[in-house]
Amino acid sequence: MKFRRSERLIDMTHYLLQHPCQIVPLTLFADRYGAAKSSVSEDVAIIKETFEQRGFGTLKTIAGAAGGVQYFPSVSDEETEQFTHSLMNRLSEPDRLLPGGYLYMTDIVGDPKIVKVVGKLFAAKFVNEKVDVVMTVATKGIPLAYATASELNVPVVIVRRDSKVTEGSTVSINYVSGSMKRIQTMVLSKRSLQEGSNVLIIDDFMKAGGTINGMKSLLEEFNANVAGIGVLVEAEHPEERLVDHYYSVVKLSEVNIKEKQIKVTKGTL
Amino acid sequence: MKFRRSERLIDMTHYLLQHPCQIVPLTLFADRYGAAKSSVSEDVAIIKETFEQRGFGTLKTIAGAAGGVQYFPSVSDEETEQFTHSLMNRLSEPDRLLPGGYLYMTDIVGDPKIVKVVGKLFAAKFVNEKVDVVMTVATKGIPLAYATASELNVPVVIVRRDSKVTEGSTVSINYVSGSMKRIQTMVLSKRSLQEGSNVLIIDDFMKAGGTINGMKSLLEEFNANVAGIGVLVEAEHPEERLVDHYYSVVKLSEVNIKEKQIKVTKGTL
Repeated sequence: MKFRRSERLIDMTHYLLQHPCQIVPLTLFADRYGAAKSSVSEDVAIIKETFEQRGFGTLKTIAGAAGGVQYFPSVSDEETEQFTHSLMNRLSEPDRLLPGGYLYMTDIVGDPKIVKVVGKLFAAKFVNEKVDVVMTVATKGIPLAYATASELNVPVVIVRRDSKVTEGSTVSINYVSGSMKRIQTMVLSKRSLQEGSNVLIIDDFMKAGGTINGMKSLLEEFNANVAGIGVLVEAEHPEERLVDHYYSVVKLSEVNIKEKQIKVTKGTL
Repeated sequence: MKFRRSERLIDMTHYLLQHPCQIVPLTLFADRYGAAKSSVSEDVAIIKETFEQRGFGTLKTIAGAAGGVQYFPSVSDEETEQFTHSLMNRLSEPDRLLPGGYLYMTDIVGDPKIVKVVGKLFAAKFVNEKVDVVMTVATKGIPLAYATASELNVPVVIVRRDSKVTEGSTVSINYVSGSMKRIQTMVLSKRSLQEGSNVLIIDDFMKAGGTINGMKSLLEEFNANVAGIGVLVEAEHPEERLVDHYYSVVKLSEVNIKEKQIKVTKGTL
């Protein structure tokens, strides 16, 4: 069965988007289409040009006998700008304010349109770093962590608040939640993380950074390294923040409970 | 700026894959490429043919002035077969056995390669039903639920075991876990689910079906309807199952703790 160029381009685009960050040997495509490697190389060049022009990501071509192509996702500056602004608008809606000055964000982290873009934004920041695993703590950060892991083509591991029989042996630590100064517990299944792993920490919200700091302590127990930290929303925090280096998509810069006003600005991403 | 056909095909393929189940007006593409609607229609026909031949999904074209195209994801029979077999093999690994006959599955539900396919398999079963929301209960089902929701282009809502201040007002129910006969609690944020919603329930594991049944009771409190149920793994259960209609990807048909043997067969999908 022979494939026309148009079919090859559609199939390859689909394949590359489904396999981010993986080296795909050109021979795989050549076999798939019964095409010469030179034709496949030309196809790749066309896709590369279009992807990079449109800001979908970059295509890295690897020359030689073991040659192949690797797709690294990204989000165009224009889309990032539009996305950040619409997120800022949605988060500023006054009815998000909950008693105690908390913000209702469950709909945001449950919206695949938002989560997909956030996953790509974080992934794009770390495609050139060594990330073996994405980690988050239950519950609201999970979709974001999964979306990021999916774009980086690495597993996601989930830290829990309590141990469960289906997790096997676990490692547990206590930590001080930054803003509430309360002692809390975090648990991670022993076999879910290999020693020496490079771990990208993703969460939905960071105030003083106590929870993120807890995850960092947990990583120490596994002799694992922090490859990076990404949070969707960071809150302004008057006291010293416990975490230094991180990316945030947006920043909650002012919450006025009395006036029901929420001010959201751009984050550090 | 004019676009060549090859560029249009790559861009449209990307766009459609990023926007599953959404009606995309042909005028959007025509404007995007500065192309005639007739050229765009031809492009769509080529993509439709390739997608359907390769088993990526179907493209529905809507004629008329408000005409457009809608991509419904699916997984080819060949890929489904390969995927199910490799999942059966991975789940049969003897070292997954935990005390009490439980199975360690955390790595499976944390692997984006697996989760992505499962999401598509479930979505493909329900693209023609009315699904407004995908629901799961924390924690391990969340990546699967998110992946399914993402392919169906609907939000995901997460039921929790305890209420949290960041969820606002909640509705809570008690239910009897089927296999352990223990009374447990489930909580859902009030504003996360609209009355009358059609809800697809997704979970990682089902034994007697108590947890799924709990979610069904919770839906009654919201006057919401069950649009369907999908579980990754169902366990053989000697007693009466509490849930009748569901899809499962695989079935745990035998767990022999003494011999360390796990037998996994195909599910009902």
